[in-house]
Amino acid sequence: MARDEFKVTPWEVSGKVDYDRLRELFGTSDLDPPLLERLERILGEPLPPLLSRGIYYSHRDLGWILDEYEKGNPFFLYTGRGPSGDVHLAHLIPFELSAYLQRRLGVEMWVQVTDDEKFLFRSDLSLAETRRLGEENLLDLLAPGFDPRKTHILFDTVSIRHLYPLALEVARRITFSTAKAVFGFTNQNNIGSIFFTAIQSVPCFLPSQIAHRPIPCLIPCGIDQDPHFRLTRDIAESMGYPKPALLHNRFLAGLGGEGKMSSSANRKDDAIYLNDPPGEVERKIGKAFTGGRATVEEQRRLGANPEICSVWNLWRSRFAPDEGEFQEITRTCRSGELLCGDCKARIIPRIQSFLAEHRERREKVRAWLPSAIVGADEDPATRP
Amino acid sequence: MARDEFKVTPWEVSGKVDYDRLRELFGTSDLDPPLLERLERILGEPLPPLLSRGIYYSHRDLGWILDEYEKGNPFFLYTGRGPSGDVHLAHLIPFELSAYLQRRLGVEMWVQVTDDEKFLFRSDLSLAETRRLGEENLLDLLAPGFDPRKTHILFDTVSIRHLYPLALEVARRITFSTAKAVFGFTNQNNIGSIFFTAIQSVPCFLPSQIAHRPIPCLIPCGIDQDPHFRLTRDIAESMGYPKPALLHNRFLAGLGGEGKMSSSANRKDDAIYLNDPPGEVERKIGKAFTGGRATVEEQRRLGANPEICSVWNLWRSRFAPDEGEFQEITRTCRSGELLCGDCKARIIPRIQSFLAEHRERREKVRAWLPSAIVGADEDPATRP
Repeated sequence: MARDEFKVTPWEVSGKVDYDRLRELFGTSDLDPPLLERLERILGEPLPPLLSRGIYYSHRDLGWILDEYEKGNPFFLYTGRGPSGDVHLAHLIPFELSAYLQRRLGVEMWVQVTDDEKFLFRSDLSLAETRRLGEENLLDLLAPGFDPRKTHILFDTVSIRHLYPLALEVARRITFSTAKAVFGFTNQNNIGSIFFTAIQSVPCFLPSQIAHRPIPCLIPCGIDQDPHFRLTRDIAESMGYPKPALLHNRFLAGLGGEGKMSSSANRKDDAIYLNDPPGEVERKIGKAFTGGRATVEEQRRLGANPEICSVWNLWRSRFAPDEGEFQEITRTCRSGELLCGDCKARIIPRIQSFLAEHRERREKVRAWLPSAIVGADEDPATRP
Repeated sequence: MARDEFKVTPWEVSGKVDYDRLRELFGTSDLDPPLLERLERILGEPLPPLLSRGIYYSHRDLGWILDEYEKGNPFFLYTGRGPSGDVHLAHLIPFELSAYLQRRLGVEMWVQVTDDEKFLFRSDLSLAETRRLGEENLLDLLAPGFDPRKTHILFDTVSIRHLYPLALEVARRITFSTAKAVFGFTNQNNIGSIFFTAIQSVPCFLPSQIAHRPIPCLIPCGIDQDPHFRLTRDIAESMGYPKPALLHNRFLAGLGGEGKMSSSANRKDDAIYLNDPPGEVERKIGKAFTGGRATVEEQRRLGANPEICSVWNLWRSRFAPDEGEFQEITRTCRSGELLCGDCKARIIPRIQSFLAEHRERREKVRAWLPSAIVGADEDPATRP
């Protein structure tokens, strides 16, 4: 891959991602200031960092979602997780935005856990393992605070009876040729991986099917998931449902300085996991890639570069919710006043206490999670 | 297609089928006299017409199935139906053989109804329609007499939660390349049709999974279904299950004289449906293709040709269970003593009374059918 090339699919992100170019390639729209201002008016308060600081940066049909909302036709939120390991900070982003939007607007939330997908795309994982991971992951992902009465989980292997009929409707409308063009499949892909996108489409339509009326769907997700929903949008109207709208986030930078916080085996210190003990946080942040200079003297003189810094990216996303503090960190980083060591020493306790609070919130999810999983109350015995 | 060419896939049978050549192409084994004699010994009575008269003519691993049976490890039966219309006489063949084997040997029976398949492969059918047809078809297919305590129905869209995990295990082991080679798929096939074979594999393994021990599986089916199970056999051992064994039947000749009794729109008088009223039977048999001569005089002199005759094929399969009568019909047909009009007049009341009795047996199935469908007792509401 040449220096300025990159690849983004739902299963692979490599190279240095050019986000503007990606938006052009995918044909999505810029989340521009007028739209953000409109969103702020509807939310009735200053935008949270995920929206105000460019982490969510692209969309499809958000304007239409807001039109419908203002006409009294509120959307539902849908996002998901492919459970292939423990949850790290980057995975939390769409769930934090969703929890915030649910709190402010009172909308319904649908979560899909694709244990089937991870099994099909990862030959090293058993289905029992992806299922167990899915159950564990949900505790983390729902910890940001959802309304149990308005939150519904589609856990693929558990909820499949509710998903399958609509998945068949989707699948009949997508040829291998199309799936190949969108996802880059080859003849060597397994037949389950080829079918899978149909399952990921279903939550866009299921709430409308249940309600017997079209309900707008808004999907906050990483831009890498856009190909799935491009396909979904192409077939939505032929199925009698509105096209789902999307809000795309950039990837959270990995601590190693590469594009996307990753849990791959060869980059194991790249991510802060939600179950990292305090010492691990200290160790990982200690060795994290920054935008600093080779020497203190040079940094005092020339300043550092926050945009490429993995620690600044953490401040930006979640750990400096106060705008004044965030601006001060950014300014003093650039000016050379704030040295990387001091900056790291300042963020470590923030992350540690965030994780401690997260674990308390996580435990509270246990009480209501089982009853939120669609189909979990149906008899799971395979004995006829 | 050249005169002696033919095509046999699970979704298309065309041309004049050369059954011996098909056995060679598919690589199956001849159901030869020594094996049939062994089967007769185990059954403890003369073989029924479906086995003694060459309608079942090919197999895979039947010898192994009998070895295991004699060692005290009985097999289960598995056959199925893709519900795309009403049931006709040809569809009944694997179910009649299965009912007979269950009665004689007391084995368990598993039936799969692939309403998903027919939806995926037939763009003119809705899922509601294939599901309704599946429910109706089951009454017909179980009418030959099954033991309700030993008969289990896997109705794909109803039982999917029990099917899906094993289907994923199968799907992960089959590439598009392999499915393409076996079924002749192209890039224009929809992604559901490509995945579907994984669903049809599951009943081969599910009883073993439930029992936590390997149980041999015997599948009586039309030879056109063999490609599915060739794939299943290729992956069975890697999943820890025995390869399913098969017993293949020839197609019942259509009344129009072509290879396979068909329900296609352009051959609508080709089949006797199980719900045909007496007058329809008379009308269809009256115009059925026979092996007779152009004139009575010629037929008296030269005799007729039973092998190509659609009426003789009906005598052979079901309507002359008495071997002496069947031999007499065949002999007098060949000699010219039995004229086609007389032969037809003789079979019409047999078919009519078979259908009348069938309808009585069919009504009795209603009582136990719902409780035999795996998953039917689970809450079907999609409201979370």
